[in-house]
Amino acid sequence: MRAVDIIRKKRDGEILDEAEIQFFVSQATSGAIPAYQVSAFLMAVVWRGMSVSETQWLAFAMGASGAHLDLPAHIGHRVDKHSTGGVGDKTSPILVPLVAACGAIVPMTSGRSLGYTGGTLDKLESIPGFRTALSPDEIRVMLDRHGCCMVGQTDSIAPADRLFYGLRDVTATVESVPLIAASIMSKKLAVDLDGLVLDVTMGRGAFMKSPSDARELAERLVAIGTEVRLPTRVLMTSMDAPRGHAVGNAVEIIECVKTLKGQGPSGLERLVVSLAAEMVHLAGLESTLEASEQRVSGVLASGKGLEQFQQVITAQGGDPRIIDDYRLMPVAAHRQMIKASRNGYLVQLDAELVARATIVLGAGRDRVDVEIDPAVGVITQVSLGDEIRSGDPLAEIHYQRSEDLPEAIQCLMQAFVIADTPPKLGPVVLERVA
Amino acid sequence: MRAVDIIRKKRDGEILDEAEIQFFVSQATSGAIPAYQVSAFLMAVVWRGMSVSETQWLAFAMGASGAHLDLPAHIGHRVDKHSTGGVGDKTSPILVPLVAACGAIVPMTSGRSLGYTGGTLDKLESIPGFRTALSPDEIRVMLDRHGCCMVGQTDSIAPADRLFYGLRDVTATVESVPLIAASIMSKKLAVDLDGLVLDVTMGRGAFMKSPSDARELAERLVAIGTEVRLPTRVLMTSMDAPRGHAVGNAVEIIECVKTLKGQGPSGLERLVVSLAAEMVHLAGLESTLEASEQRVSGVLASGKGLEQFQQVITAQGGDPRIIDDYRLMPVAAHRQMIKASRNGYLVQLDAELVARATIVLGAGRDRVDVEIDPAVGVITQVSLGDEIRSGDPLAEIHYQRSEDLPEAIQCLMQAFVIADTPPKLGPVVLERVA
Repeated sequence: MRAVDIIRKKRDGEILDEAEIQFFVSQATSGAIPAYQVSAFLMAVVWRGMSVSETQWLAFAMGASGAHLDLPAHIGHRVDKHSTGGVGDKTSPILVPLVAACGAIVPMTSGRSLGYTGGTLDKLESIPGFRTALSPDEIRVMLDRHGCCMVGQTDSIAPADRLFYGLRDVTATVESVPLIAASIMSKKLAVDLDGLVLDVTMGRGAFMKSPSDARELAERLVAIGTEVRLPTRVLMTSMDAPRGHAVGNAVEIIECVKTLKGQGPSGLERLVVSLAAEMVHLAGLESTLEASEQRVSGVLASGKGLEQFQQVITAQGGDPRIIDDYRLMPVAAHRQMIKASRNGYLVQLDAELVARATIVLGAGRDRVDVEIDPAVGVITQVSLGDEIRSGDPLAEIHYQRSEDLPEAIQCLMQAFVIADTPPKLGPVVLERVA
Repeated sequence: MRAVDIIRKKRDGEILDEAEIQFFVSQATSGAIPAYQVSAFLMAVVWRGMSVSETQWLAFAMGASGAHLDLPAHIGHRVDKHSTGGVGDKTSPILVPLVAACGAIVPMTSGRSLGYTGGTLDKLESIPGFRTALSPDEIRVMLDRHGCCMVGQTDSIAPADRLFYGLRDVTATVESVPLIAASIMSKKLAVDLDGLVLDVTMGRGAFMKSPSDARELAERLVAIGTEVRLPTRVLMTSMDAPRGHAVGNAVEIIECVKTLKGQGPSGLERLVVSLAAEMVHLAGLESTLEASEQRVSGVLASGKGLEQFQQVITAQGGDPRIIDDYRLMPVAAHRQMIKASRNGYLVQLDAELVARATIVLGAGRDRVDVEIDPAVGVITQVSLGDEIRSGDPLAEIHYQRSEDLPEAIQCLMQAFVIADTPPKLGPVVLERVA
């Protein structure tokens, strides 16, 4: 078997077989197939696509390229969640302690910010002292004692995915449904789970711009899960506007804490409850989705989710006092409020433009080697559909360098679209694929 | 400017501008753009194609990536020829001395065999002592004294083409009209020529399988030449059957010598005269194509082309006695004749299968690092359209190792298709693009 023949076959739009995909992934991981052949292959996949079976084989081969996280048998009800990312997407740090407080085991691995999508790891690390790089042994202790963990992917898990992702980022081969699906699932296949909930975001602030792409991705993800008997559910969610009010790192963690206190934005809370209910249901803790939702709402109202978050922060080295005193989180030197210049209704709040403003401020990165500033960010003051009067505050900018301000303000002023008639608002969860 | 943005633009089917193409080629040549980005770009070009302007810019940028062969002003009437290659394509070693004997200056650079296409350099080096690696100074002396040379591309000419071609070969990105056109022209742009004749081969034994691809390539080549005021003409020629009777290396040089003696296969002689006439005409030695053809035919009949070939062989270090004594060329240890098993007409002679037989024998290479055997090859005994009786010889195999024989015979027996009714034969030159 030769790499060039596999590339040619995909280039010509043919279907690869399982052995070819396994060969290509394992040889690429070992370095026997050089990067220039991998990148030509990836571009051919972007061009020609992959069948459902090819996508499954690719996910399995990438998952099998590295170590498997073994968990003791007595740790049951294991469930994980992954989001395809977006602007202000802070559901993970809320969901993990909340679902663990419901009785599930949640071994969550997350990634870092890139482009306009934030990264859960960067957000968590804005908590002073919080460590996301835990060893497999430390992960096992966390799950045993606290029922959950929030960690970065270790080097030993799915090295093929790391190799492929690094190349995709610099060869314009990120935007491919089968490559995205295989990448997500390869990492989740390295842990034995009882269920997996996926949040496929869609809209201006997400990778998936169109409903058809999002639905195709959702179906691939469920198909891969089904093939390995991992019950997988997808909620397709809207990402036209930022999720919640805060976009940044420390500011988002503070919004997570508020949400666990029952003081978060209502749309964010509804989404968190929907995702958490799916996780509790898949974990086998309740027999219906309705009962799962009731359990989640009860745990949230009781404050047990917040308590669990505080325990996790402590166990992973962070300062638990941030729960009560937000001033212990990194704080930006300056704030600037931007205001509406006309009356009307907020009909659009462009997530991509808000993200661009936060990247200008230093909250995100457009290259992997950029350091982020945990303190800066944007806090929107209004929600889609709100009636607005000229002079009303629209967003507060938390910034460090005055020279960043003009560009950030420009991005934000374009992001808020105010019109005479109120918009029709869609639901947060657009579709459910299971 | 970033490589990834240029790749993305091409991936999305957009037209690159001149600055982007120049940037990509120069940075790739210097190594600042790594091979994995180049190969993703090449696959995107295979996918999306290139406009005529993009192809021109690519050819210029690749041509400008290395040195320029300066020739003294008094060396005029400079003309070169290039073939897109094929099985048994031995026109170059005949054309170069023939056209030089007509009064033109022919600074010909050629390549090596790869896949089923033979390489002029490998054929020439089957002449004992013949050197194809000449320095720029040696090339100038050859042109001054002998009016021609037959050399390999030096490392300093169009290094971008060498880089790109090496990657294309292992990433399944060879088959692309704009990449082929830019590759051919980039090397020819490094020498100041008065004219360029291109033989675009088409059919079973050529890169271009379809007339539409061949015509597109022909038009691109002429457009690139026109843009730099290099008069360029293309003959689109048939490559369904091998060219002439001999396929190999030494056996092909012997057929070249025979053709210069007026004893070659008639189809090959007709093609050589057509190509040579175009070269003589473009060199400005005659004002019409008819007069050019008369001059070529006269020079061929007079034996001056043969004399010129003998001088070039001597000047480039080869043994000139091979002209009169073919036994001084490398000779294979064994010969085996294969014969027809039925009566009929030869309706097909599959060039690709004949080539595969010669590769089995060791006359060609399917990888760049394989040594070829100059002595082995196949000599067909019949031509398309010939009436054949059972038992008639079809081809003689010149081989060294008995273990190669069965596979070579199998390929050849499939290559000759004999049917009851004679085929309609097309012309050797299918179209002319100028």
